[in-house]
Amino acid sequence: MSTSELQNDRLLRALQRQPVDRTPVWMMRQAGRYLPEYREVRNQAGSFMGLCRTPELAARVTLQPLERYDLDAAILFSDILTIPEAMGLGLEFVAGEGPVFENRIKTATDIDRLPRPSPDQELRYVMDAVQACRQELKGRAPLIGFTGSPWTLATYMIEGGSSKTYAASKSLLYNEPEAAHRLMAKLADTVADYLSGQVEAGAQALMLFDTWGGVLDPQRYREFSLAYMQRIVEQLPRERDGRRVPVTLFTKGGGQWLEDIAATGCDGIGLDWTTPLDEARRRVGDQVALQGNLDPCMLYAEPEVIRREVRRCLAEFGHGPGHVFNLGHGVQPETPPESVETMIQALHESSPAYHDATAPTASS
Amino acid sequence: MSTSELQNDRLLRALQRQPVDRTPVWMMRQAGRYLPEYREVRNQAGSFMGLCRTPELAARVTLQPLERYDLDAAILFSDILTIPEAMGLGLEFVAGEGPVFENRIKTATDIDRLPRPSPDQELRYVMDAVQACRQELKGRAPLIGFTGSPWTLATYMIEGGSSKTYAASKSLLYNEPEAAHRLMAKLADTVADYLSGQVEAGAQALMLFDTWGGVLDPQRYREFSLAYMQRIVEQLPRERDGRRVPVTLFTKGGGQWLEDIAATGCDGIGLDWTTPLDEARRRVGDQVALQGNLDPCMLYAEPEVIRREVRRCLAEFGHGPGHVFNLGHGVQPETPPESVETMIQALHESSPAYHDATAPTASS
Repeated sequence: MSTSELQNDRLLRALQRQPVDRTPVWMMRQAGRYLPEYREVRNQAGSFMGLCRTPELAARVTLQPLERYDLDAAILFSDILTIPEAMGLGLEFVAGEGPVFENRIKTATDIDRLPRPSPDQELRYVMDAVQACRQELKGRAPLIGFTGSPWTLATYMIEGGSSKTYAASKSLLYNEPEAAHRLMAKLADTVADYLSGQVEAGAQALMLFDTWGGVLDPQRYREFSLAYMQRIVEQLPRERDGRRVPVTLFTKGGGQWLEDIAATGCDGIGLDWTTPLDEARRRVGDQVALQGNLDPCMLYAEPEVIRREVRRCLAEFGHGPGHVFNLGHGVQPETPPESVETMIQALHESSPAYHDATAPTASS
Repeated sequence: MSTSELQNDRLLRALQRQPVDRTPVWMMRQAGRYLPEYREVRNQAGSFMGLCRTPELAARVTLQPLERYDLDAAILFSDILTIPEAMGLGLEFVAGEGPVFENRIKTATDIDRLPRPSPDQELRYVMDAVQACRQELKGRAPLIGFTGSPWTLATYMIEGGSSKTYAASKSLLYNEPEAAHRLMAKLADTVADYLSGQVEAGAQALMLFDTWGGVLDPQRYREFSLAYMQRIVEQLPRERDGRRVPVTLFTKGGGQWLEDIAATGCDGIGLDWTTPLDEARRRVGDQVALQGNLDPCMLYAEPEVIRREVRRCLAEFGHGPGHVFNLGHGVQPETPPESVETMIQALHESSPAYHDATAPTASS
């Protein structure tokens, strides 16, 4: 595909722990409901999945946060659950409840019957959206592709939605480990195809969201979540057009397992706000870049508090490369957009002091 | 008060890391909805708080799990939210939603107006229930008294119930730290009075449930949750009738902060299932006993899986004293009672091998 040259490569450099002139920043769920301009397009589209399925609209909302804020990456507007949806589980978004699947996985037979959707067919619309995003971005910033981790996808497919206890999904792991492994393997290979397709279509960095890995005990986390994220990492194209395509793994609540996560061969680890950046850097900073980790609730605080916390976060990571500033989880829908502006401004004011001003960063 | 001599002191010995003949066991929420005999008394009582407020019924359900299973402790049947209820916040238990407070804390003025309920007056009914439990127990096993940690109580008082994000409670910490400190101090001192009253009334061990400490960043956890648990620990009577009254702190999701928790001077730390017992023992086992940590969802597994996991848990802690077997969170309401039996039998079969059979444990 023809795309303009990348004018801002801070994210890609930071994820390879290469020098940058300032700490790159993007936000999980940066394109979304907290932005009035998003809500307008969302209403036009009629439904959330309708918006995901219409490449020009998906591209429009993907770029909205970059129009408003000085961000260093765009993340494809899509959902972590596109794969189970394409497997025919009947995804709906119920107001106040979040995602709900009409058809749940109940037996080993259900697992073996699951089709393996392809990026060329059932998931073609996502590839089209990636292409449309790249076209609109014109090289302003790299585009991040993503999906949910196999375990996280499996929890929604088994529970039918989110859960307080994950009792049904855990029961599968505990009582039918072989069937569980078949499900995770099928999901991992589908995810690998899907993310490879996104790279083919133009994604320049990738992220796996393991939102529910932290509800597992360490043994099952390694066996059923992390092992399959590693299987995906091993299958992904890691270079495209002469550039590294970095992969970041984010397990919410996974702060105790950073060494294991780093050992998968990923480029970056996403951190929630329960693990200090200095501690994480001491433990795995020689192997991976670190992304995070401001509490999204901090964006409800007063401007001076937000500014102070951004500075604390920078000081906690310390000098030198390998840090991608982000929240510790997705932006919340009620976040005041001006608080995001305060956060980004504070970062741009304070972060250059932690870097070498002469770093050869391509930036607009 | 006149009570029989304690015939089973395994729990009290284990919490002081003294030798025992086998690993003591009890379960968080062991008296509760998963037991048909509980549901019967609950229906008689009319309401959950009605049951808590009627000492003879509270004592009856407190003892029910000990009639059914070979347990090493009773835990008072009550709620973690008795203190905010006694502060006049209007507690109701809404089916499917859990606890809901009619009157939420919204401003610093609301905090300063909060009364400080006393164990001799507003909370007298809890002391009466403790006395009734001791009378019924007749020294069979020690009675554990408990309540919620100041931060955990505060989240319910501010959010009005449970929450996905704790945005309102965190906003208080972020934006009005002084008012937040006043609230935590008032709650801590009320908790200290309340737990001291429970010891006076007959509680032989104490536990603080910091159910929502794990949603905080490390700095706020230490400043707003742990510091106030320490303030409580420092105010509690630690001996009664010539015996140590051990205090256990449980922060769900607090596995990253065990060193800080151990430094409060508590006797035991409760662990959820995300932290391996061997790792926890290596980190803090020379300072505190460890309680835990089977995933409550494991009780939905097949009997042989439950037995294997109990053995794994024992092997993980290893030989010698200082382990109290428990779940990593409360028993879930849909737990099959026979699975609890399987777990306890497996523990009693396998745990003696990890201890000195000649340990001078008083046991019935």
